[in-house]
Amino acid sequence: MFDFMKEKLYASVISDVLDRLGYRNQAMNAEIRPIYPEAVAVGRAMTVLTVDVYQVTSDPYRMEIESVDSLKPNDVLVACTNNSTRTCFWGELLSTAARARGARGAVIDGYTRDVKRIIQMGFPVFAAGIRPIDSMGRSLVVGYNVPIVCGEVCVRPGDIVFGDIDGVVVVPHEVENEVIPKAIEKATGENVARSELQKGAFLRDVYAKYGVL
Amino acid sequence: MFDFMKEKLYASVISDVLDRLGYRNQAMNAEIRPIYPEAVAVGRAMTVLTVDVYQVTSDPYRMEIESVDSLKPNDVLVACTNNSTRTCFWGELLSTAARARGARGAVIDGYTRDVKRIIQMGFPVFAAGIRPIDSMGRSLVVGYNVPIVCGEVCVRPGDIVFGDIDGVVVVPHEVENEVIPKAIEKATGENVARSELQKGAFLRDVYAKYGVL
Amino acid sequence: MFDFMKEKLYASVISDVLDRLGYRNQAMNAEIRPIYPEAVAVGRAMTVLTVDVYQVTSDPYRMEIESVDSLKPNDVLVACTNNSTRTCFWGELLSTAARARGARGAVIDGYTRDVKRIIQMGFPVFAAGIRPIDSMGRSLVVGYNVPIVCGEVCVRPGDIVFGDIDGVVVVPHEVENEVIPKAIEKATGENVARSELQKGAFLRDVYAKYGVL
Amino acid sequence: MFDFMKEKLYASVISDVLDRLGYRNQAMNAEIRPIYPEAVAVGRAMTVLTVDVYQVTSDPYRMEIESVDSLKPNDVLVACTNNSTRTCFWGELLSTAARARGARGAVIDGYTRDVKRIIQMGFPVFAAGIRPIDSMGRSLVVGYNVPIVCGEVCVRPGDIVFGDIDGVVVVPHEVENEVIPKAIEKATGENVARSELQKGAFLRDVYAKYGVL
Amino acid sequence: MFDFMKEKLYASVISDVLDRLGYRNQAMNAEIRPIYPEAVAVGRAMTVLTVDVYQVTSDPYRMEIESVDSLKPNDVLVACTNNSTRTCFWGELLSTAARARGARGAVIDGYTRDVKRIIQMGFPVFAAGIRPIDSMGRSLVVGYNVPIVCGEVCVRPGDIVFGDIDGVVVVPHEVENEVIPKAIEKATGENVARSELQKGAFLRDVYAKYGVL
Amino acid sequence: MFDFMKEKLYASVISDVLDRLGYRNQAMNAEIRPIYPEAVAVGRAMTVLTVDVYQVTSDPYRMEIESVDSLKPNDVLVACTNNSTRTCFWGELLSTAARARGARGAVIDGYTRDVKRIIQMGFPVFAAGIRPIDSMGRSLVVGYNVPIVCGEVCVRPGDIVFGDIDGVVVVPHEVENEVIPKAIEKATGENVARSELQKGAFLRDVYAKYGVL
Repeated sequence: MFDFMKEKLYASVISDVLDRLGYRNQAMNAEIRPIYPEAVAVGRAMTVLTVDVYQVTSDPYRMEIESVDSLKPNDVLVACTNNSTRTCFWGELLSTAARARGARGAVIDGYTRDVKRIIQMGFPVFAAGIRPIDSMGRSLVVGYNVPIVCGEVCVRPGDIVFGDIDGVVVVPHEVENEVIPKAIEKATGENVARSELQKGAFLRDVYAKYGVL
Repeated sequence: MFDFMKEKLYASVISDVLDRLGYRNQAMNAEIRPIYPEAVAVGRAMTVLTVDVYQVTSDPYRMEIESVDSLKPNDVLVACTNNSTRTCFWGELLSTAARARGARGAVIDGYTRDVKRIIQMGFPVFAAGIRPIDSMGRSLVVGYNVPIVCGEVCVRPGDIVFGDIDGVVVVPHEVENEVIPKAIEKATGENVARSELQKGAFLRDVYAKYGVL
Repeated sequence: MFDFMKEKLYASVISDVLDRLGYRNQAMNAEIRPIYPEAVAVGRAMTVLTVDVYQVTSDPYRMEIESVDSLKPNDVLVACTNNSTRTCFWGELLSTAARARGARGAVIDGYTRDVKRIIQMGFPVFAAGIRPIDSMGRSLVVGYNVPIVCGEVCVRPGDIVFGDIDGVVVVPHEVENEVIPKAIEKATGENVARSELQKGAFLRDVYAKYGVL
Repeated sequence: MFDFMKEKLYASVISDVLDRLGYRNQAMNAEIRPIYPEAVAVGRAMTVLTVDVYQVTSDPYRMEIESVDSLKPNDVLVACTNNSTRTCFWGELLSTAARARGARGAVIDGYTRDVKRIIQMGFPVFAAGIRPIDSMGRSLVVGYNVPIVCGEVCVRPGDIVFGDIDGVVVVPHEVENEVIPKAIEKATGENVARSELQKGAFLRDVYAKYGVL
Repeated sequence: MFDFMKEKLYASVISDVLDRLGYRNQAMNAEIRPIYPEAVAVGRAMTVLTVDVYQVTSDPYRMEIESVDSLKPNDVLVACTNNSTRTCFWGELLSTAARARGARGAVIDGYTRDVKRIIQMGFPVFAAGIRPIDSMGRSLVVGYNVPIVCGEVCVRPGDIVFGDIDGVVVVPHEVENEVIPKAIEKATGENVARSELQKGAFLRDVYAKYGVL
Repeated sequence: MFDFMKEKLYASVISDVLDRLGYRNQAMNAEIRPIYPEAVAVGRAMTVLTVDVYQVTSDPYRMEIESVDSLKPNDVLVACTNNSTRTCFWGELLSTAARARGARGAVIDGYTRDVKRIIQMGFPVFAAGIRPIDSMGRSLVVGYNVPIVCGEVCVRPGDIVFGDIDGVVVVPHEVENEVIPKAIEKATGENVARSELQKGAFLRDVYAKYGVL
């Protein structure tokens, strides 16, 4: 299913369908960007919550390790660092470990590092920035598989996450069966509108005819 | 004329000439970036003004459609969303429609979406960010061909807009006949300075000789 | 030495070693980014300090020229504009002049311009943004080879600067002989961890074994 | 009813009751402050929406006048300027006109002016700041009695607004009959807790006994 | 003249008159506030420009002392720190020295300290904030009696500065003879409008009659 | 000792003495303000660290209660919420409980509420803002008596905290015996300088004589 979604869909059409169903706050903010233009992450959210700390504690990676080791096939790790600019939650070794568990990507409202190698791996990471620091003594995982907010969107474990070059959209679990088919349908509709516009049609006529923009 | 400008000029040399003539606030701020590095947009400003709204109104795209359908050959659409991060003014279908009217690009102080396809089209869009949402229920066009501010620069309909990888510069209509020739002249001058510097000349000597930096 | 560092090291491993030695504020913030992904700048800091001004003074480039002409082989110019968004400190001619003096890059907590040509030159510039303006009448150099703060990190003349796609790290002069060898050692260690993770090992086991993350 | 609420209630206890009922985003953000410490505004929201503009239009105050003249007794005007820092929506003459219509206050996500005289009048204004400018040529009212967002809270016409020194809370119309009695009840409960704490009780015991904090 | 202005005028009416004459960017932004509500500063601008520095230099106060000692009767010191949050330009001893020279106030786009004693002195200081630090090793005065920008407004030596509880307005020297009489006239006009509004008149009628709002 | 300090000292003189000893980052930033002008908090830091959360958990106040109940006479509670604007850490009941334990104040890098009653109590609270919400379901205490950062200053349990109208300064435990006497001495020195300036002396002469500014 997620490979099919990856091939047929894109973030903006999913956002439009969610809008029509009244789910109007499902697209993460523009701070969260893919680390390479072709990155596409589709899967179920496995959420992580961190807190900024100000000392190196014993066993600083315990829950971080636990959370990443708990990833299951088709998961996308979604991390809420409360928009921290002091720490860096993600990196190459975590990407490697996540992929080994079958995860399909990572979305962080904070920073990643090791982006050269993560790009070489082709692991789709979406983050608010890049900084070459480690989390030790800067932040701790305090929970996982808990409700979080990432990029100003509520994300609960099991929600579908879809990220591409336009950004990241979250499909709440309870409406996924309604959203996905409608999104595929809308994607097709737009193709016709585009073609008429390319031939020189005015927007007013195309919109009157197809009702899409 | 605009093809010639696109070939011979670049944003920074135009900004320098405007500076010398006392027009020192003509370069948009650094938030507004091209969505692909090679994007160059040159043309006359067709301005649009939007307001953030908080309900879906009837006929939400009416003035947006009207404004895009009003584009003429050589226009560059310049949109002031008052730096909105809640909406997304631009996308692929609008790019397609704008190109069909002969427009040469779009500059938005807010967000665009559908960037993969816009890049495939080669339509030069400059924006403050990317977010996969639609404007319906988030913003409305309230005017076009009115004075606006975009990227902290006043833009009036008919001003010349020049955007490249260094950013976007606005040439007020009343000085365009003075600015363009001088910009071409300065571009040539710099080439000589560069060549001497490459050969190992000190800056103090090159600046004393050519007066450019 | 700097060519060797450029080949063997990367910013994040240097940051980790500095962390272990208690130098925990040596990685610049995420605002300062390379202007092209492959940019790597390694060398000794030659620092510059500027102030925003609001008039065109006589001889506006005097100290700027003096500072760039003072660059020595293996220097990296590091400029503190106090995060100015009003001016643009760097550009192509300065890059050309800096390279002619043997400098290995530039790091600015403000803006650069002429990025197309600087990328063509392959001169590694790290900056907080891009804007097509000149510094004349907008900022002045008020000192060089003085202690500064750039990207929230203290930089003193002679400190080692290492910038790559993950960001910029500063190695204080007094610990460089301790940091560089340890960084090379840690880089090797991670390669083993990565390989085990790729084969499917759990993070908890790899961390227990190698102590790196 | 509003005089009774003004006497018996305060913003924080209303916020707590809304929280318990699952309405957890009803307290405006901390940017919106009373212009004098004793200001208390309680009433029904009459909403206004403005857009920043960049030219002086004919009849610039038309809809602003219309909206203020439409105020009814017990209304609180709530204005969304989309957090504009370029304009100033409110002032003394508008306060005088609003009071003459029976309005009980004004809440603006932007600026007010004439605060000395408004304080002398004792008209409770809550705003994000103070600036001595007029709206003419800077912003226009584009709608009133429409849903808005003010201080990050959705406000619909007819919702109850309660502002005091702790900030502004919005009670959705549909739950006001549930919220107000519960808020009065909770206010009483706290008084007992406070008294025990004053006598030296530990928080753990008081919380165990009364369940309030 | 300045005592007369202090008695008869207020910042918002001066801003309105400047607006009508086309000087629409003369009111400082809302960050710059009086440190006590009754503060009123009226006089001619004596401007100061500072730069943030990162070391304690020899004779760190030299130009700061020189600038304050140069104050003349009826001056208002206006300081541009480029919005620094790292330093604190003003304090009690400088206020005492400034008053001894005959100065009528100080306006700083940065911080002040010693506010308790400055309030006791009744010296009108307008600042962007309060922080208990000294400028030594944090900033240096680099010029005075030069054009600056303070609170987003250009200020030249000799311009008239008027600050009260609504904020700070700058009257360019060349229009002061036109602005002051018109401001006094407008202040009178509003008094009549206010009185009619208090009696219950609708805004539309009062605006039609007096043309003020 | 703390009563004596409260009577004789003020934040800015302590900051100056810390500066001279090389402790130059001990004054909290200007965001953290007293909730009433006369508030003075002096005592030993009892630190608290919180994390923003996105669900109501069982026993949400457990560690918050524990931390406040652990306060000892002469403590000042200093809370790091990582600058959260989503929650409100402090309020009246906590102030009452803290005072009952002998605490001398609270400093929060986030929000407080119930300020009317806290002011009536005369309990000195310093905060980054005021918002009428509760922490339940918004944040949790995750540690106390741990090193934190508050207002950009490192605070360790036992450090001396001094807050007044100019802001909050932190005296590291290891230098308190050096700092306090020197601060008292400097406070005296300034009184003489002030008196000469009041009599009309020039700053240059007073600074030459006393070396204070």
